[in-house]
Amino acid sequence: MALKLYGTVASDTTQRVQACLYEKEVHFEFITVNTAAGEHKTPRFLARNPFGELPALEDGDVTLFESRAITQYIANKYDGKGTDLIMKDPIKLAIQTVWMDTENQRFDQPFSKLIEAAIEGNEGGNKDVREYQRKLESVLDVYEQRLKESKYLGGDSFTLADLHHLPGMHYLRSTKAKGWFQGRPHVRAWAADILSRPAWVKVAAMSPW
Amino acid sequence: MALKLYGTVASDTTQRVQACLYEKEVHFEFITVNTAAGEHKTPRFLARNPFGELPALEDGDVTLFESRAITQYIANKYDGKGTDLIMKDPIKLAIQTVWMDTENQRFDQPFSKLIEAAIEGNEGGNKDVREYQRKLESVLDVYEQRLKESKYLGGDSFTLADLHHLPGMHYLRSTKAKGWFQGRPHVRAWAADILSRPAWVKVAAMSPW
Repeated sequence: MALKLYGTVASDTTQRVQACLYEKEVHFEFITVNTAAGEHKTPRFLARNPFGELPALEDGDVTLFESRAITQYIANKYDGKGTDLIMKDPIKLAIQTVWMDTENQRFDQPFSKLIEAAIEGNEGGNKDVREYQRKLESVLDVYEQRLKESKYLGGDSFTLADLHHLPGMHYLRSTKAKGWFQGRPHVRAWAADILSRPAWVKVAAMSPW
Repeated sequence: MALKLYGTVASDTTQRVQACLYEKEVHFEFITVNTAAGEHKTPRFLARNPFGELPALEDGDVTLFESRAITQYIANKYDGKGTDLIMKDPIKLAIQTVWMDTENQRFDQPFSKLIEAAIEGNEGGNKDVREYQRKLESVLDVYEQRLKESKYLGGDSFTLADLHHLPGMHYLRSTKAKGWFQGRPHVRAWAADILSRPAWVKVAAMSPW
């Protein structure tokens, strides 16, 4: 039975899981959740994700939510198929985990706030928006240093540490007038590399943003 | 050579790692970082954690930051010693990971903001504080449902999914006048259980808050 991914092509968290499934070359069924009609707040969907947010994954009897938990499940389950997304060596895995947690703790929140502001037409920025921009820039400064020493954030090959950034870097690239990459050549090269991977190109082609 | 943990006994992220080390019964050296003197912003500390924040862990040549990446490293490295903190079964591990990510994505941010506000003497609450309180309450509502079905958040035994919440639940318990546990008996029982574990009691005894 195919995996079932519940989400929308516009949701950054759904996109993260789609990218993972394409990288792993895993067949799946995509089930669009009609958020405009409030389908994600119905008891049926809340049984899949009690927070009423996207996405959710069903694999037979197993139901999972939280995009990063889903990608880890897929990367572990389909070990040996498609792209290896998890380091085998325990020390390398620990370092990959540091950068996965950095994305989760430091990159995601300002990025999510900026994308919310953009959707509300507030990209120019009030005080809060400028604060999130400043936060994100300081994260990118650390990434610039890291990427001078390491081809990818998590280590010498593309892993979930990079993949989890795809929706965010896609958004930042589309607003490049803001100069996110100015003075950060390693971040720019890394973004160009990961955003040109066929799995992401496929996801981006379906995204309305 | 003993593991070296750099942090302070007042830092919630350091406490998370201390709790893990005590659960795993791993000998370690605690090195207090003088944050009042700005030691966490010196080049020497930034080489350990490029964000200039607590904690960092050194294990011989390996240096790690981000508290949750450190706990995962310790739990994996010392598998078979002390408390098992990671599920062995892949499906159970996936479910544990969902609740670890829930803590990271949904619980941590409002909790951190509330603790910041408390430190600044703003517990009574301006509009932002009330918004974070509301967010945290809605997370606890989901936990109440989860804990009706499962003794621990991550599954049938205590794991990192619970451990990562310790500093936060400790803080919420100390402000119980606010009624966090009112109407949430399963959350209250779970909090009482995990906060009475000897490893956490040891950490809490050193905490100034």
